[in-house]
Amino acid sequence: MYNYFMEKIVSKDNARVKRWTALKEKKERDRSGCFLVEGEHLIQEALTAGTVDTIITDLEESPFDFAEQVQVAEPVMKKLVSSVSGSHIAAVCRKLEQAPLQFRRLLLLDGIQDPGNLGTLVRTAVSFSFDAVYCSPECADLYNEKTVRSTQGALFHIPVIRVDLSDLILQLKAEGVETVCTALDGSRPMTVIPPSEKMAFILGNEGSGVSKHLQEISDVRMRIEMDGFESLNVAVAGGIVMYQYRNR
Amino acid sequence: MYNYFMEKIVSKDNARVKRWTALKEKKERDRSGCFLVEGEHLIQEALTAGTVDTIITDLEESPFDFAEQVQVAEPVMKKLVSSVSGSHIAAVCRKLEQAPLQFRRLLLLDGIQDPGNLGTLVRTAVSFSFDAVYCSPECADLYNEKTVRSTQGALFHIPVIRVDLSDLILQLKAEGVETVCTALDGSRPMTVIPPSEKMAFILGNEGSGVSKHLQEISDVRMRIEMDGFESLNVAVAGGIVMYQYRNR
Repeated sequence: MYNYFMEKIVSKDNARVKRWTALKEKKERDRSGCFLVEGEHLIQEALTAGTVDTIITDLEESPFDFAEQVQVAEPVMKKLVSSVSGSHIAAVCRKLEQAPLQFRRLLLLDGIQDPGNLGTLVRTAVSFSFDAVYCSPECADLYNEKTVRSTQGALFHIPVIRVDLSDLILQLKAEGVETVCTALDGSRPMTVIPPSEKMAFILGNEGSGVSKHLQEISDVRMRIEMDGFESLNVAVAGGIVMYQYRNR
Repeated sequence: MYNYFMEKIVSKDNARVKRWTALKEKKERDRSGCFLVEGEHLIQEALTAGTVDTIITDLEESPFDFAEQVQVAEPVMKKLVSSVSGSHIAAVCRKLEQAPLQFRRLLLLDGIQDPGNLGTLVRTAVSFSFDAVYCSPECADLYNEKTVRSTQGALFHIPVIRVDLSDLILQLKAEGVETVCTALDGSRPMTVIPPSEKMAFILGNEGSGVSKHLQEISDVRMRIEMDGFESLNVAVAGGIVMYQYRNR
């Protein structure tokens, strides 16, 4: 069992504490490829996925059997976790950013602004066995504390990669992947587009949809059949599309 | 044109102002059957649906052609609208709570807690031409300012009725409506359940799902096919179900 501690840190000025605290900022998460998660449930998910670097707690005993665990004083813990959660345990995790070598289903997100929508889309992608999520640089950051929570731990189970979608779509097309973009005008209804071997689906910004350029370079423009009101939340639209073309 | 004003109210102690302000509280909304909406977009939707009672603004001229418009002083307006929106125009609207005489598709919500999920589910129901939404008494209130906004105006286009779902399900079954409840354990996959003439779909609480009793009295227990992770946000699950059985 590894649920004892090698050390206890009491000073907020400790170099490691400073490095962990810096992970609350996007800049440091981008630089290091790491992020913080809070609470037993999420840490359990991260352990299962093998993406935990260090567990940090102000408890006397850790509930987890893991080699890299550090005990800290209560004020240090308070500095690390969000005041909302008030968690007594947190972990530094490594982002999953490696593109899959083999895949059948990809989700491409163009400028998703709302952290809740982004987290929900990643959660849904895992549920329907998608192989990776690609985000445009304009998307919200997946690794802030609120978004991490709304994924319900799904982000440990799927690579989420930030790229220029325009380059990616051209590359996917060259590899024979069918690129399908959701759009209202001049699009074909979803039911007439059969599943094919390798597909990538592009969803767009909450207000403006998929950008015109990406619509133009995609193989297919597709719409979800609706009557009258024609208004769907992007996470709901994504759910319908991912269910329809789920990876089986 | 009716975009002029019959009167201008300057006092925050005016009896009508007090009545309008009281609509910020659920109690008064329940009592009166009315609620407040803010901003031109939502008011336009409400006017199209014919559910506006009074338009209130501190503008010099109203953008709308409507008989019942009241001009108020800026401090009165500030008291009425949320500080987030800072709108200069608001409207008192009547709730749509009349059960439809004829219907093919109903959505039943059992204890949906999150206002965003509730608003999104109502928005999706309108997009797929559902005929009414029934909420258990434990559901969040649809008519607070935040939820109204997340419906994107959909709540003017569909009756949303608060009832005891247990009584309703028994009554619907007696009328020959197929009652379908979403559940994981002991349920049949969605793809083997064909659409029938009249259907009612029951979705449950974010944490605990549909209550055991409602599961027991429903005709069918249905699950959305997933692999592994088996975790969907309830608004996403609702979107997939409502698309699959949309009213055509």
